[in-house]
Amino acid sequence: MPLNDVKALHFDVFGTVVDWRSSVVAELAAFGESKGISADWTQFADDWRGLYQPSMDGVRRGDREWRNLDTLHRESLITLISRFKITGLTEEDIDRLNTIWHRLNPWPDSVQGLIRLRKKYVLATLSNGNVALMVNLARHGGLPWDAVLGAEIHRAYKPMPQCYLGNAQLLGLEPSQCMLVAAHNNDLAAARTLGYRTAFILRPTEYGPNQQKDLEAESDWDIVTDSMTGVADALGC
Amino acid sequence: MPLNDVKALHFDVFGTVVDWRSSVVAELAAFGESKGISADWTQFADDWRGLYQPSMDGVRRGDREWRNLDTLHRESLITLISRFKITGLTEEDIDRLNTIWHRLNPWPDSVQGLIRLRKKYVLATLSNGNVALMVNLARHGGLPWDAVLGAEIHRAYKPMPQCYLGNAQLLGLEPSQCMLVAAHNNDLAAARTLGYRTAFILRPTEYGPNQQKDLEAESDWDIVTDSMTGVADALGC
Repeated sequence: MPLNDVKALHFDVFGTVVDWRSSVVAELAAFGESKGISADWTQFADDWRGLYQPSMDGVRRGDREWRNLDTLHRESLITLISRFKITGLTEEDIDRLNTIWHRLNPWPDSVQGLIRLRKKYVLATLSNGNVALMVNLARHGGLPWDAVLGAEIHRAYKPMPQCYLGNAQLLGLEPSQCMLVAAHNNDLAAARTLGYRTAFILRPTEYGPNQQKDLEAESDWDIVTDSMTGVADALGC
Repeated sequence: MPLNDVKALHFDVFGTVVDWRSSVVAELAAFGESKGISADWTQFADDWRGLYQPSMDGVRRGDREWRNLDTLHRESLITLISRFKITGLTEEDIDRLNTIWHRLNPWPDSVQGLIRLRKKYVLATLSNGNVALMVNLARHGGLPWDAVLGAEIHRAYKPMPQCYLGNAQLLGLEPSQCMLVAAHNNDLAAARTLGYRTAFILRPTEYGPNQQKDLEAESDWDIVTDSMTGVADALGC
């Protein structure tokens, strides 16, 4: 069976392991209430995530020097605070809002699935999130990573090849010994081109009730399932 | 209290967290017995470790391109196999011997101390060992790291400053918010120069019964103790 060679599982995190949207909306709303600020916080969260890919593009193209995701998130946050005409926030408020991304809750199946997978495989993050963010997410949600790797370590954002190749190399493995677990078809496609095995987890509400993309596996990924425990089932863990 | 600022503990690993010498001697002896090879395996282990610092010096000086510790360990191993006139080993045998360093046992107090410390602090490796080696050590010994960082991530060997500064930066911290925990005075001295807080653990048998160095704290480190649980006691964990 070809998946027998796999030694390490690498994970996309936002959307695949954690439910960023409901976590961000809930914290924004609680913050607004505590400060007496009313706004459409759901729209704010969606717009914040909407700036995620564009914010990395300048770095990907080489137009901007490397900066990590906390920095990009903060730039986007300041743009949105202005766009939503929110006033009176201190630097401390802005820092607190920015670290909402460090406190996202896992999907209900994530921790149980990861604990099962870890008995057989090395588990590493392969996220565009920075190391401090990933460490805090793991401590917040009880995510049992063996190694926090990904974009900041390689100073490149997915889908740049060095993210996938660099993660494999740091674990002393060939790409064919690695599997990417992700809820996003484009991430899996980039990984497969470089030799990774692939597992797709359907997360149909990652972007809320009106999600438009990643509603099905768009290729014959090695594993197609709808939960982390489903990945564990498929791998016999 | 000045240590109140500390958010993350960074750990030297060989000698501080794991007992490399007894682990290496035991595996070498078992290997020799299984292969019918007799040699002074204690001397072999000491000579292997003796080549550790010299093997990194070429990289530190910039005379050699970056290569990780698995590679340097293997170069030293091949030198010693020849010096000890051991013949008939396959490439697979050599690989198996080289990964002895991935299977070192923790000191008896290490895991208990780390578990206590992790409740209050982020725990990261700051070792010259490479990522795959550190991941395997952690899985072998049950070491609860939040992040496996250190030399390979920064492509520099301690005591080069970028190791200490890079570890702090990846955790989103100032050096003054970091503490190095180590059994080696020179490592602590390098860290303190860069702003780290310092904890010395006395490990008087790291180098065996005739250990010549690091038999006492040679400066007024913030914490001086003889076990990982002693570090936890000192930090109120």
